[in-house]
Amino acid sequence: MFRKEIKVLDCTIRDGGLMNKWQFSKDLVKSVYDSCVAAGIDYMEIGYISSSDQFPRPEFGPWKFCAEDEIREIVGDNNTGTKLSVMADIGRINYDDIRPKDESVVDLFRVACYDYQIDKAIDLAHHVMDKGYDATINLMAVSKVNDRALDQVLEDVANSRVKTFYLVDSFGSLYCEDIHSLLDKYRTALPDRTIGFHGHNNTQLAFANTIECIRGGANMLDATMLGIGRGAGNCPLELLLSFLKNPKYRLEPIIKCIQDYIYPLKQNIDWGYFIPYMITGSQNDHPRSAMAWMASEQKDDYLAYYESVVKNKEI
Amino acid sequence: MFRKEIKVLDCTIRDGGLMNKWQFSKDLVKSVYDSCVAAGIDYMEIGYISSSDQFPRPEFGPWKFCAEDEIREIVGDNNTGTKLSVMADIGRINYDDIRPKDESVVDLFRVACYDYQIDKAIDLAHHVMDKGYDATINLMAVSKVNDRALDQVLEDVANSRVKTFYLVDSFGSLYCEDIHSLLDKYRTALPDRTIGFHGHNNTQLAFANTIECIRGGANMLDATMLGIGRGAGNCPLELLLSFLKNPKYRLEPIIKCIQDYIYPLKQNIDWGYFIPYMITGSQNDHPRSAMAWMASEQKDDYLAYYESVVKNKEI
Repeated sequence: MFRKEIKVLDCTIRDGGLMNKWQFSKDLVKSVYDSCVAAGIDYMEIGYISSSDQFPRPEFGPWKFCAEDEIREIVGDNNTGTKLSVMADIGRINYDDIRPKDESVVDLFRVACYDYQIDKAIDLAHHVMDKGYDATINLMAVSKVNDRALDQVLEDVANSRVKTFYLVDSFGSLYCEDIHSLLDKYRTALPDRTIGFHGHNNTQLAFANTIECIRGGANMLDATMLGIGRGAGNCPLELLLSFLKNPKYRLEPIIKCIQDYIYPLKQNIDWGYFIPYMITGSQNDHPRSAMAWMASEQKDDYLAYYESVVKNKEI
Repeated sequence: MFRKEIKVLDCTIRDGGLMNKWQFSKDLVKSVYDSCVAAGIDYMEIGYISSSDQFPRPEFGPWKFCAEDEIREIVGDNNTGTKLSVMADIGRINYDDIRPKDESVVDLFRVACYDYQIDKAIDLAHHVMDKGYDATINLMAVSKVNDRALDQVLEDVANSRVKTFYLVDSFGSLYCEDIHSLLDKYRTALPDRTIGFHGHNNTQLAFANTIECIRGGANMLDATMLGIGRGAGNCPLELLLSFLKNPKYRLEPIIKCIQDYIYPLKQNIDWGYFIPYMITGSQNDHPRSAMAWMASEQKDDYLAYYESVVKNKEI
């Protein structure tokens, strides 16, 4: 599939960090960055941007904060074809802590929000745009949003200056036909905006849903190396690149980084397809109870987890 | 998705055995059988049927042969709602070794063949049908078959008495749109036959492709517990059951069997999503070179494997 408008965003560090509180070695982060540059990836999302009083250090690693000096230790002035992105959660960043774009190597702020936070998200997006950055809004957990609320969100975004809006399958619960239908709705409501997609792999559909989005006209696609990410993880970057035929992308640097740095993380982090994550995905639930189960002594007692989930549904 | 015509076939032992030469414990095979019965699975495929002079024992376990007495040790007379299936490869079974149906607990023979073997496959299928069994033909490696050859196969099957014909993604290389197009072709050529689907998970699309087939009208669906199978494995049975809404299926027995018997096999067998399998899938290659790589000392040197594959393509 070749369409020159398509952009790929690597969020290996940002989403993968949800599994280890962003405690990656500097070597690993540098390798991910260098590989993205060498592979022709359009954006690398290096972490969440949060004000330093929001989370305790050293419990959380540097990519929970994305301080300018720590980003520059990895990327220098980033004179490359790969732009840098950070994700902002509503309420985690003080407006005054955001420096003007000409003092930062960051190019793009992605504002993640729930439907009821859309006004705050648009306000933050406009704020960073006024400081010189690009901005997207990523509406999370759309599988739980009812039609009327979603129409309101889309209308608000249509009336904003935000140029890119993301379809996000936060729980990994959407089937291809759900994706098809939502994307159609997004594109109809926002005909002059770019639509992005961020999937999760609970039911092994993150890559399939990304292809569905490509076919439906989404032009900004999230992926991570070896699919590393929260719970079941994300669309694997190496699969996405093998599908896209745009000659600007190269697979080898990604395979090398996976081999040297990402695959070895599997010794300590259980991301990917595990039965508890599959259960929350197929039930359209937040993965938090599955993540807690996977962090417990009884992680391999899948039946007990399943029974607890079903029992909770019946109450 | 509820459609009463849909049948699910578990091939955990048959396809999983390709990874360990069918050296499963009797307890494991019994647990898979009992779980299939309890879960309402329509067919359990217990192995390949081969004449005893075709492969050396004890290198190959019992499910490479499927001797009647060894099957009965697991299933007794199989007075259950789950039918029993065996797979036959062309040339591996002597016609005279196949007993009449009234002397066997096997219900279904699935004849696997390449396109150039279709005449032999139809002959074997008719032979077992004449002995009282049901039969399917599973055309392997269709991603390598050209249009003219495929038309010939479909015409031959249309002129046969075989009632079920399988779309098989042997290399895990087909995208959903390939599946859509092939299924359309199969159904047009064989309007009065049942179409089955057997996927492989090299590019994490086995479940997505199975859903695509369900939507396209395929009614016989293969899956394995935790996706165990050759190389990247198959469509996970637990995902398929979570998608199908037919009340006759139950997920708990499958989760329990995975927990007790299948997940522990992961300690010794590397099936599932690994970069070498992803590379053969995305290149539409047979997985044999990836399997050999994964069995070698250099299994984690993904880059060297990728380079060897690309280099071979260039020659």
